Amino acid sequence: MRIVVLAGGIGGARFLRGVKAAVPDAEITVIGNTGDDIHLFGLKVCPDLDTVMYTLGGGIDEDKGWGRTGETFRVKEELAAYGVGPEWFGLGDRDFATHIVRTQMLGAGYPLSAVTEALCDRWRPGVRLIPMTDDRVETHVAIEEDGEQRAVHFQEYWVRLRASVPAHAVVPVGADQAKPAPGVLEAIADADVVLFPPSNPVVSIGTILAVPGIREAIADAGVPVVGLSPIVGDAPVRGMADKVLAAVGVEATAAAVAQHYGSGLLDGWLVDTVDAGSVAGVEAAGIRCRAVPLMMTDADATAAMAREALALAEEVRA
Amino acid sequence: MRIVVLAGGIGGARFLRGVKAAVPDAEITVIGNTGDDIHLFGLKVCPDLDTVMYTLGGGIDEDKGWGRTGETFRVKEELAAYGVGPEWFGLGDRDFATHIVRTQMLGAGYPLSAVTEALCDRWRPGVRLIPMTDDRVETHVAIEEDGEQRAVHFQEYWVRLRASVPAHAVVPVGADQAKPAPGVLEAIADADVVLFPPSNPVVSIGTILAVPGIREAIADAGVPVVGLSPIVGDAPVRGMADKVLAAVGVEATAAAVAQHYGSGLLDGWLVDTVDAGSVAGVEAAGIRCRAVPLMMTDADATAAMAREALALAEEVRA
Repeated sequence: MRIVVLAGGIGGARFLRGVKAAVPDAEITVIGNTGDDIHLFGLKVCPDLDTVMYTLGGGIDEDKGWGRTGETFRVKEELAAYGVGPEWFGLGDRDFATHIVRTQMLGAGYPLSAVTEALCDRWRPGVRLIPMTDDRVETHVAIEEDGEQRAVHFQEYWVRLRASVPAHAVVPVGADQAKPAPGVLEAIADADVVLFPPSNPVVSIGTILAVPGIREAIADAGVPVVGLSPIVGDAPVRGMADKVLAAVGVEATAAAVAQHYGSGLLDGWLVDTVDAGSVAGVEAAGIRCRAVPLMMTDADATAAMAREALALAEEVRA
Repeated sequence: MRIVVLAGGIGGARFLRGVKAAVPDAEITVIGNTGDDIHLFGLKVCPDLDTVMYTLGGGIDEDKGWGRTGETFRVKEELAAYGVGPEWFGLGDRDFATHIVRTQMLGAGYPLSAVTEALCDRWRPGVRLIPMTDDRVETHVAIEEDGEQRAVHFQEYWVRLRASVPAHAVVPVGADQAKPAPGVLEAIADADVVLFPPSNPVVSIGTILAVPGIREAIADAGVPVVGLSPIVGDAPVRGMADKVLAAVGVEATAAAVAQHYGSGLLDGWLVDTVDAGSVAGVEAAGIRCRAVPLMMTDADATAAMAREALALAEEVRA
């Protein structure tokens, strides 16, 4: 079975472990969000790609969900001693090596997709990880801070400000000019099923879908497209998805997110059992819906979620 | 008193501590060798500038004489895990931060001299440290390895091969097109004395003198130019200066090095007491010469060497 998964960071990476456990023989292609990418200290940092790579490759800090296990912060301390920031972004020494290798390869002319493949030669994540695009896309957030309107990089909004100020707009800068990375459209066309993990529908999945050609390829693939709600009981399972949903005028409910994706794209939708009351409404909007446990509390629960998603896909197909 | 010192790495940096101790009120300008500079992992590494900066700024690993005190090597280990080398060059985590800041500033368009000044804002070395040039100069060494002739970067010859194979030629690639960095010629013109520390006469001092205009400015400054022999008893005090002296056809003796610099450039020369027998020969070549202890065993001995050099300069002046 060939499965395509669109992935953001922590939620997507953990869900992917469930997919691998549920169908060990599947050929899994992960289309990774790069809208979170940021240049720090002259280095290219790809938080979502790295979270997927480290999580599936056994290098992740399990407690934090991002960054490397057993991490130290000597380089960052020294940069601060030079007065060079930002200090609010936690880059560890081990993590720095990844960004140094990536930046060196990009500087030598390799596209991000080739660089990601080279990094995965070490991590062997057991999936094919492709960035959504080799072009530069940066998600910016229009905010009001201290009475002033300004646009900040998504990482600044998310990490420095912890989404504590209202977001008026979320813009994937450069997305309209971006082309899907080599292999992205082919993987979608060849897929037996496409899954949307319980990732942020705006800044993770939404950014991937904003690259011209990807949404269309998924809609036209003629295979089941099934998503899992990142909202459980009217609140995000993790992160601050509600803040960016508000910016795009979408209610932070499982049903509203399904309708935001839309029946033209989404065939099936899983909501948590606490949101069973929303199933009928989602189905009325033309999206097959089931209520199942959606908390990724451990490996078994996560694999069960993946199995439910694939079962719903088969239902849709039949 | 305004003192200009041409400096390589460890020997130059330690001698500079002696100069600072000997004349605390002096305005010292250090013209640093950049021929040892190398791009590693996409980062610009300036070993000699950093050794001077760390040594005078209190950040040096005193045992090794290079690199940072209390250093760790997490980044390097991770780079090796990615299969990215070279492994033979010892870059520590703290040191990496310096190269990251430098590379970022160079990428933003600042010349190396401005970057060095910015780095020194943190280290406050108590001297004005200027790279010999803002242009790229790389010392290459023509060697024979495994029966094949090839040219390697000086660092590869020095660090990886430990000067264990014969050097046929030493070429400061790019030097002929390089311009002295801003402030270099002005410092020389304004100097009361110019000192050559007991540094490598070929790949440290020699490379600085290979930048068009610097040798001429020193010769024309009309002030005493005094050097200290890096060769004591027919062997280098540290390092492998004899190997590169052979490549340029100079005997590894205190007297031969003085004559290599030449009386057109050098007014005074200090040899170690064990080489007292060579004093007459050096003086016959037109260079005033004294035999004094030249082992930088501790701070006092080093300061005494600096005082002897300055005393010889006054003798020349008179």
